[in-house]
Amino acid sequence: MRTLYFANGKMYNDGVNENAGKGFLMSEKASADVVINGKVYTLAGYESKEYLQRVAAYINSKIAECQETEAMKRMPKEMQSVLLELNIADDYFKAKELVEKYEEDIASKEKEIYELRHEVIANQIKQEGLEKNIVDLEEENKQLHIEKAKLEGNRNDI
Amino acid sequence: MRTLYFANGKMYNDGVNENAGKGFLMSEKASADVVINGKVYTLAGYESKEYLQRVAAYINSKIAECQETEAMKRMPKEMQSVLLELNIADDYFKAKELVEKYEEDIASKEKEIYELRHEVIANQIKQEGLEKNIVDLEEENKQLHIEKAKLEGNRNDI
Repeated sequence: MRTLYFANGKMYNDGVNENAGKGFLMSEKASADVVINGKVYTLAGYESKEYLQRVAAYINSKIAECQETEAMKRMPKEMQSVLLELNIADDYFKAKELVEKYEEDIASKEKEIYELRHEVIANQIKQEGLEKNIVDLEEENKQLHIEKAKLEGNRNDI
Repeated sequence: MRTLYFANGKMYNDGVNENAGKGFLMSEKASADVVINGKVYTLAGYESKEYLQRVAAYINSKIAECQETEAMKRMPKEMQSVLLELNIADDYFKAKELVEKYEEDIASKEKEIYELRHEVIANQIKQEGLEKNIVDLEEENKQLHIEKAKLEGNRNDI
């Protein structure tokens, strides 16, 4: 069993491993023993044990997919690896395309939110104008009622 | 050189290939000859030639990353494959995490847009009420001015 330092795709030979490994591990969350294609590997990286186990489980599930048929199992090992790498890379590219699509969606939604907020503010300003207008008209009304009452009073005095 | 049908991670042996291949290819965009780790493979799938070439170029770049040091090159072939698979899977998991984060962002932005739209509509309804209020007050004012003028006229008649 050998240790794979797979974060950043860096790998050290056993000699360097022992030293580099220790230094490396100090700055790491954890290392984990995982089983990939029936063999045990110690994975060390800047990730949690759970993450390292999830990645290993995913790779095993892709290996199973790539060995569904007898024909696939009979393929030369190197071709089986290439097929596996292609399928994992395909998952990555599909996820990357989704990331790019979502980035566009988020940008357009942020634009819509910006415009809606402006509309809300513009409406508030307009509303304040209308309310001011109402106050003025009500005041004018009040005055007219008073003046009208006075005039009617004067007339009754006659 | 053999053909790899890597869409859905399915693989056929050469015999089936010729037949399944043709049927498969009819429903496909294209097949492409790509070079992976110095060997030529014909990739067939539901993807464009450009996509198949991009995936192959990506895998070669990851192979280069995993062979940066002499120690890495000296590793057993199987371990080199596992390290490569781990690194491609790591890219996939990082992209997948981003996809999940963006899905949450999009959901919360959609909620905000929904609420802002409601606010805009509520404001419009309130505004219509205020405008109606102004029209009524202006009409009342007009009437009061007329009545006031009449009363003043009557007084002057005396």
